[in-house]
Amino acid sequence: MHAITIPEPGGPEALVWTEVPDPQPGEGEVLVEVAASAVNRADIMQRQGFYDPPPGASPYPGLECSGRVAALGSGVSGWAVGDEVCALLAGGGYAEKVVVPAGQLLPVPQGVGLTSAAALPEVVCTVWSNVFMVAHLRPGETLLVHGGSSGIGTMAIQLAKAVGAKVAVTAGSKEKLERCAELGADVLINYREQDFVAEVKDATGGAGADVILDNMGAKYLDRNVQALAVNGRLAIIGMQGGRKGELNIGTLLAKRAAVSATSLRARPLEEKAAIVAAVREHVWPLFTGGHVRPVVDREMPMSEAAEGHRVVEESGHIGKVLLVAP
Amino acid sequence: MHAITIPEPGGPEALVWTEVPDPQPGEGEVLVEVAASAVNRADIMQRQGFYDPPPGASPYPGLECSGRVAALGSGVSGWAVGDEVCALLAGGGYAEKVVVPAGQLLPVPQGVGLTSAAALPEVVCTVWSNVFMVAHLRPGETLLVHGGSSGIGTMAIQLAKAVGAKVAVTAGSKEKLERCAELGADVLINYREQDFVAEVKDATGGAGADVILDNMGAKYLDRNVQALAVNGRLAIIGMQGGRKGELNIGTLLAKRAAVSATSLRARPLEEKAAIVAAVREHVWPLFTGGHVRPVVDREMPMSEAAEGHRVVEESGHIGKVLLVAP
Repeated sequence: MHAITIPEPGGPEALVWTEVPDPQPGEGEVLVEVAASAVNRADIMQRQGFYDPPPGASPYPGLECSGRVAALGSGVSGWAVGDEVCALLAGGGYAEKVVVPAGQLLPVPQGVGLTSAAALPEVVCTVWSNVFMVAHLRPGETLLVHGGSSGIGTMAIQLAKAVGAKVAVTAGSKEKLERCAELGADVLINYREQDFVAEVKDATGGAGADVILDNMGAKYLDRNVQALAVNGRLAIIGMQGGRKGELNIGTLLAKRAAVSATSLRARPLEEKAAIVAAVREHVWPLFTGGHVRPVVDREMPMSEAAEGHRVVEESGHIGKVLLVAP
Repeated sequence: MHAITIPEPGGPEALVWTEVPDPQPGEGEVLVEVAASAVNRADIMQRQGFYDPPPGASPYPGLECSGRVAALGSGVSGWAVGDEVCALLAGGGYAEKVVVPAGQLLPVPQGVGLTSAAALPEVVCTVWSNVFMVAHLRPGETLLVHGGSSGIGTMAIQLAKAVGAKVAVTAGSKEKLERCAELGADVLINYREQDFVAEVKDATGGAGADVILDNMGAKYLDRNVQALAVNGRLAIIGMQGGRKGELNIGTLLAKRAAVSATSLRARPLEEKAAIVAAVREHVWPLFTGGHVRPVVDREMPMSEAAEGHRVVEESGHIGKVLLVAP
């Protein structure tokens, strides 16, 4: 088969489409013939040499895919060759075939095309595990999403609205904020022009956000804590603004608030399977009525993954950038 | 009646035992004739002028008491005049009488004396709400308790052991650590001589603590995050080591860990009542078999509260310092 390899870490040109051996499914695993994968920031860090795959994972990038089941390893039940699926991966999605632990497979949701389904696993699992399983966003509460027009952001807006929460978003342009509004966002904050702490407080009668989904890390830590409501929960899933920040414990304590940080890729198989099962139970039915849909910025050939990385690095996208297998 | 008043904030001598008007129970409140109260660090901060009582609370210090029900306000059921009780207070425990919202009353547990029961409400409610309701300590997990010989610490050790957790404690002397061991602590760390991060990792096969109960705040923040296990939860309940500390979000994210901070006093009535109800359901039965008991350092007359404050400020105590009403 062909896959995107990284012979030497570097810029987008470090991604090389080349012939590699086919992977073989082991016990409890499924071989998927890939229809499409999608670009995640973690792929860019891996390409740059800053984020090695966890032990045992494929060396090729790609944390999610859609496709068809091509073969079953021993001990797998509930799936058949030919099934249309999408999957959460520890790596290897930028390839024509990939091996997946069966617990990380999902059926393609009703109403979603096979290619578009590649836009779902990472964002749905990340949003569900953080905003709902860790931070327990409840109906009537307010969620602040940083980077509202990103893949994560566009899914967070939709899922939060689907459960009856109020959604505030930050983004860097009028166009991006308009797309967030179309997806249901109630409070639109241009972070280049507005102070998100003041805007969120203003939109909540001074209370602040009950849950914040943050990809900036250190740069926003102090302002995120300021923007939290009493009993608020800050869920950090990225560190685009740095790793070490000052935490005002006094403010956190006065608000009885909490800060959590997670990543999906490093979780053990059983935790990933639990998240995938929860997503299938709670999120998948929302696709049926069209309440939630994948937000795809563009599709490009997988062999041109370098161009996909450039788009995401420049934040020129809204939603997900898909890489379509030949 | 008499109460300890604070005419001018300052040192222990600022506490003045003087005659004041009797409080009157309003709707949903109970008047308690106080048997004893106990010294908490928040009382010391209030005495120093750094921690004003929340709106509507008694101006006198004292966050807990034991005693007998002396009168019922309108709309109170489930309690009768003469009942022996202890109570979580928003203030006013350093007095001969105090008014308490009915939701914050507890019966004196079986096997505990009326005076000793004054040692329980703050520590049990603080430990239960943080270690169990927020941080969800589970059987088989490891809890690290800073200040293991304090009132909070001695109760945290007992409750964690009662649910089948392993307990590590820090304290500043061999004598204090020995008392922690008598209460069930498994791992004893003298913070003056040992590095608690290394000791906790060593005692858990390198894994770290699943839950940390911390009263130091900023001073320990970075080391606490280092000492956490994967999926670990740091629960901060005090800031004796400062309010602002550096949070290593990278470490937190790699561990999928969380930091929470709470205080009991500022919670609204319904949250206090929910904690008190949970304590009555889950903790009170443990007193019956003697699995858990109040740890009382000493009892002194309430009129000599200044001396009680000196003892606690010098950390010369193990467990709680009680102030007995005349």
